[in-house]
Formats: sequence, structure tokens, C-alpha cells
Amino acid sequence: MASDAFSFNLSGIDRGARWGDAATPHGSFQTPAFMPVGTSGAVKAMTAEDLEGCGAEIVLGNTYHLYLRPGEKLIRQMGGLAEFTGWRKPTLTDSGGFQIFSMQDLSHVDDGGVTFKSHHDGSTHHFDPEKVIRIQLDLGGDIIMSFDQCVPYPAEKGLAADGVRRTFDWAKRGLAYFRKALEEGNSGAALFGIVQGSVYQELRKESADRIVSLGFPGYAIGGLAVGEPKEEMEETLAYTIEFLPHDKPRYLMGVGYPEDILMAVSYGVDMFDCVLPTRNARTGMVFTSDGPLVFRNADCADDDRPLDPDCDCRVCRRYSRAYVRHLYNQREITALVLATYHSTYFFQKLMRNIRSSIENNEFEQFRKGFLERYGADEE
Amino acid sequence: MASDAFSFNLSGIDRGARWGDAATPHGSFQTPAFMPVGTSGAVKAMTAEDLEGCGAEIVLGNTYHLYLRPGEKLIRQMGGLAEFTGWRKPTLTDSGGFQIFSMQDLSHVDDGGVTFKSHHDGSTHHFDPEKVIRIQLDLGGDIIMSFDQCVPYPAEKGLAADGVRRTFDWAKRGLAYFRKALEEGNSGAALFGIVQGSVYQELRKESADRIVSLGFPGYAIGGLAVGEPKEEMEETLAYTIEFLPHDKPRYLMGVGYPEDILMAVSYGVDMFDCVLPTRNARTGMVFTSDGPLVFRNADCADDDRPLDPDCDCRVCRRYSRAYVRHLYNQREITALVLATYHSTYFFQKLMRNIRSSIENNEFEQFRKGFLERYGADEE
Repeated sequence: MASDAFSFNLSGIDRGARWGDAATPHGSFQTPAFMPVGTSGAVKAMTAEDLEGCGAEIVLGNTYHLYLRPGEKLIRQMGGLAEFTGWRKPTLTDSGGFQIFSMQDLSHVDDGGVTFKSHHDGSTHHFDPEKVIRIQLDLGGDIIMSFDQCVPYPAEKGLAADGVRRTFDWAKRGLAYFRKALEEGNSGAALFGIVQGSVYQELRKESADRIVSLGFPGYAIGGLAVGEPKEEMEETLAYTIEFLPHDKPRYLMGVGYPEDILMAVSYGVDMFDCVLPTRNARTGMVFTSDGPLVFRNADCADDDRPLDPDCDCRVCRRYSRAYVRHLYNQREITALVLATYHSTYFFQKLMRNIRSSIENNEFEQFRKGFLERYGADEE
Repeated sequence: MASDAFSFNLSGIDRGARWGDAATPHGSFQTPAFMPVGTSGAVKAMTAEDLEGCGAEIVLGNTYHLYLRPGEKLIRQMGGLAEFTGWRKPTLTDSGGFQIFSMQDLSHVDDGGVTFKSHHDGSTHHFDPEKVIRIQLDLGGDIIMSFDQCVPYPAEKGLAADGVRRTFDWAKRGLAYFRKALEEGNSGAALFGIVQGSVYQELRKESADRIVSLGFPGYAIGGLAVGEPKEEMEETLAYTIEFLPHDKPRYLMGVGYPEDILMAVSYGVDMFDCVLPTRNARTGMVFTSDGPLVFRNADCADDDRPLDPDCDCRVCRRYSRAYVRHLYNQREITALVLATYHSTYFFQKLMRNIRSSIENNEFEQFRKGFLERYGADEE
């Protein structure tokens, strides 16, 4: 279900990998796309100018966090996320489900929805499928997500089946609510469905079939990258994606490492989001062409090379590892700003290279060359 | 004492106020100038690109901090501060004296120099006038400062007199060391002298006369903005500056508030430095055309105006008070980045306006208009 403002266009396919673009009320973005995570209305340690500088085209906002602070009503009053945050390009808001189900001790789920306690002050809140859509409409993102139940890994099959059933019921309820808002002209957003089912093929197929039957303009694969071995993630993804319509964008939530993105693209995933590049930057690690670099380590103390000698971002063109390490060790905010910028740029550049390699029908070649140098196995 | 690379040119005078420019090995800067403080090799929460964006032309580095971490030898090995920090324009390094004398419990002074303990790890260190010059030469700043003894306020006259005597002895020793380095071609820097004397006119005159007799290419007025009432600061400044040569730059160390800068410019001060704009930004306050704004306060919660509606910086053109406040309250690094950028820009714009008002012989008019709107009395 989507307003006319949303459309997805596949430009080409290289074996399983696809490239294309999606149009939204705040402009278009190219796929495969990586969405930096702007949890509380900003990607941590970045400005909107920085995001533009890195070439990001779409950013993710966390509904759970924004609902609690500053509240969706304030953001709506301020004109929606684009107006409020200064990031004028597309935004996708998640359903909040992942955050809530991550806090098992603080939440209680039943068929009606989820009751949970705020991590800020312990106050009690309730999300149901309609409310989650209403909050996202208030936030004003371009792509919004159905409320889903994400189960932890490993999950008993019974629990995973409950999650599949609830995720479908909730998707249906959210869709009805969203359809009404659309008909009343209250949104230009597109509502995506989410497939769950843990690592059980039978449940994945059931979830995909039922969610797809509702006719969403895009589909997310949820419940992966939650701790399962990489082989299980790949197997489940490869199996599940076959049940998703070819002409709609597929979004693998919470992924991930460069090697995981490359793997998922090979199966036809179009969208990704992950906190890895930004979170790791703040703990002293950046992504580089030669693999992860723990720049806080002593061996960078007098290393005058850029974080990534093969990178043309403004940080790598100007600053050395020795400098960023020094600032990091002095707890200077500037260190986090520089490291975050580089890693965000690195992921955006990776996506650009992926897209052009697909366009040129040499994705597998690119993937092999990237991983050879990156050395993903050494991690 | 300076290399040929340093020169100071006065372009015009409007009553006491002066405008001009100084040339250094890393380019020139216009005066009156405000130097953002880059304590540990970065202005906190800013990149070199940000500093350029704000129009800063010269930055201050703290010798005490850089000596301890990462050490002047590493910075020298990396090519000096400009190469190490990515800030390619002029840098002034202070003498370290102010920091050391601020930690009275951790330092011991005698005529030979100062023994002090590192605030990092309690290790013991010794600074003498020659060593302070040597460290600054290693750091590679464009303007370096004589080692001085700054006394606290209030100070007994005897203590202040000791400070004046030591400051002179140390200036002489440092100058001899620096002259040798110059003759050996080991520096392109300019060494400034520092006048002390607390708020005692007799001591200020003695200090100025003796320091000026050594023939420095620029003079700092130290020992002010250390807690004395504003009237005493103004009186002491007005008295002291008369003993400084007209054709050399005068630098009022550690100042300050916009109203103090305007006051000091009216007496002929050419250079300033202060942590106020950056430090206050990190505690939730920015400088605006209408005076200080505590943007963390509740009354900014739904205020969609920029931090300063009269400011054309990239932060004010894009973000609202409500947004910056929200990020600040969520402890988002981005809040500190945005607030720091605005306040740094505000100070640089103030200096630009001061310079052009002097050029147009309307400094007093500008000062009056600025203060009327800014409302300095209300602080």
C-alpha cells in the first residue's frame, strides 16, 4: 500500500543481483541502498551535511526512540522528520518492534500488541499495529514499516510460529489503518510488509506467502542478523527471498557487515540498514578497503597514512591515523566525527560500486575482488 | 624576534581601534582576530573544515596539553601542527604557563622554571624558558609565546612583582634560545613577549617597559581575565597598552565575551583567544545576536527558529532550536557539533564586522548597535 509518490524501478539484473531506484515524496534513492541509522533524529556524530557529503540517499529513523523523545507529536508539529532534522531526502522509519523485543525484561506481548517500559524513565507504554502506523505517519517518513514481532535467536518453533501469525495479523490491521489515512490524503508514504519466521523454512514460506498476499509496495526480511550463524542467515535469506515479488524492493533489516551485504545483494536484496559503521567508529574501529582497522591501537600512534589509503573521502584526504588516534585517546568529540564520517562514506561508496558493478554485469567479479583485499575471513 | 616570514601591517585606525593583517609561514590573518582554542590539536567538536567554514584564520594550540599528549616529538615527526592536525592555516601556541599556574596544587615554581604534575597520570615534569621555546618549535606553530608566570587574582603585590621579574628573565632566556634557532634556520615562527603585573599599574608599566626593551614582533597582555572585575580588567588594559609599540600586534590572552572583545578593540587590541564559544556550546549555551541563548532550556522545546535568527551560518540556515535542544537532551554528539559550529561562526562574524566597521570609521557606532541588541548588561 503506497501513495502515488512511491515507485520502484528495476534497471538491471546481474544473475541474482539487481540495481534500480525508488521514488519517494522526498526524492529518489538508488538501490541496492545502505541506510545509515539516525536513531534519535540524527545519525550519531553526523550532521545532515555530513550525510550528504558521504552520498547517503536515504536514512533510517527509529520509531521507538523518536516516539519516546521528543515524541511524534512534536516532530509532526515541526513539519515532520525532514523539516525537523534538516535531512531533506528520504527517510524510512522502522516499526519499533525490534527495539521493544530486544528489551525482553521490559516488554510484554499479546495478540493486541506490546506493553513496554521506556528505557529513559521506566514509564509504561503500549504499541499496537494501528498506533505504530499512526506514530510513523506523524513522524512523516517516506517509507514506513508494519508492526512485527521479531523473535530472538534461537527461538523454539512454537514461539517463531506465534511471531509469524501475529506479524501477519498486525500487518493486516496496520494496512487497514494506513489505507484509511491514504484515502483521506493524510500521507505520501509507502507501507512495507515484514516477513518473519526465524530460521524455519516452513515458517518463512508461510510468512512470506501471507504477507505478500496483502500486496505491499515493498518487503522486509526481518528476524535475521539477530545472532544466528552466517550460514543460517544466508540459507534463510536465499530461501525466503524466492517468495517475494520480483518487482518490489526487498529490504534485509539490520544487515550488516560488508561481506554480508555483498552476499545478500547476490540474492537480490535492495535495501539495508545497520548501526555498524557508526557505532564501531565511536569505539575506535573503522571499515577500510583492507578490512576493519582498530585505529585506537598503539600501532597507529605514528602512522601518517589515512584511515583508508584507498579512500577519497574528506577525512582520508586530510587526516592521518596518528591524528585520529590521538584525538580518540584524548576523548575528543572530533575523533568520533572523523571516524564516523569515514566509515559512513565507506559504506556508501561500497553501495555505489555494487550498483555500477551490477550495471556492468560484473558484480561477482567486484565482490570477489573486494573480499580478496578486504579479507573478510580474517575478522 | 621573528623570521622574515612574519610581518604585521596596520591598515587603518578608528580612534583607538585598529585593523590590519599579519603574515605568517602558513598564510596571513586579519586583525582584530579571534583565535578558537584547539587545546589538544583540535577545536573541540570541530573539524578543520568546520573552522574554515566559520571563517577562522588562526587557531590556538595549548603547549601544555600537546606536550603531554601526544608529545611534541610525535607532532614534529608528523610534520608539525599544520600537517598533523589538517589545519593548514596559522597557529599560535601558548607558553603553557597559564595551564600550569592554574593547577597550583600540582606545580612548584622557582627562578629556574616550573615543576608540575601531569593532570593525566600525576607524572612529574619540568618546564624552563628554553624548554618551552624548544617544545613550541617542535610543535611548529607560526606564533609562539615566551614562558611567563601568570599570578592568580587577587595577588599580593609581592607575588605579582616576582611574576613580573621572572616573566622578564624567562622572556630574555627564551629569546636567546629562539634567536639561536632562527640563526640556525630552524624556525619560521615569530616569538611574542608577554606583559604581566596583575592589576598594579606600577608593575604593568615596569613589565611592559622591560619586555618591550627586548624587541619582540608582538606583545601579549597576560594575567587578565583571571577573575578580576570587568572594570579592573578595562582599567589595567587601558593603562598597559599605552606602553606597547603602536606598530606591533597586541594580544589580550583569554578574552573573552563579545562585550569584552569590543571594549578591548576600542583600546587597540589586535588578537584574542578564548574557550567560551566552544566550551559553552558543549554545556547547552550559544551566543546569538540577541545575547546568550541557553538552548537546552524547556522554552526551546518547540521553538522552530534557528539558534540565531539573524545568523547565516550553515547551522542556522538548516536547524531549529527545537532540534538542537532535542539532540542535546539525548546526549547526541551532533548537538555539540552544531552548537559549537554556530558559536564559533558567531565570533568570527563579530570580528569581520568589527574589522569592516573600523575600516569604515564607524566602530563605535557598530559597537553601540551590537551591544544594544545583544544586551550585554542582562547577562
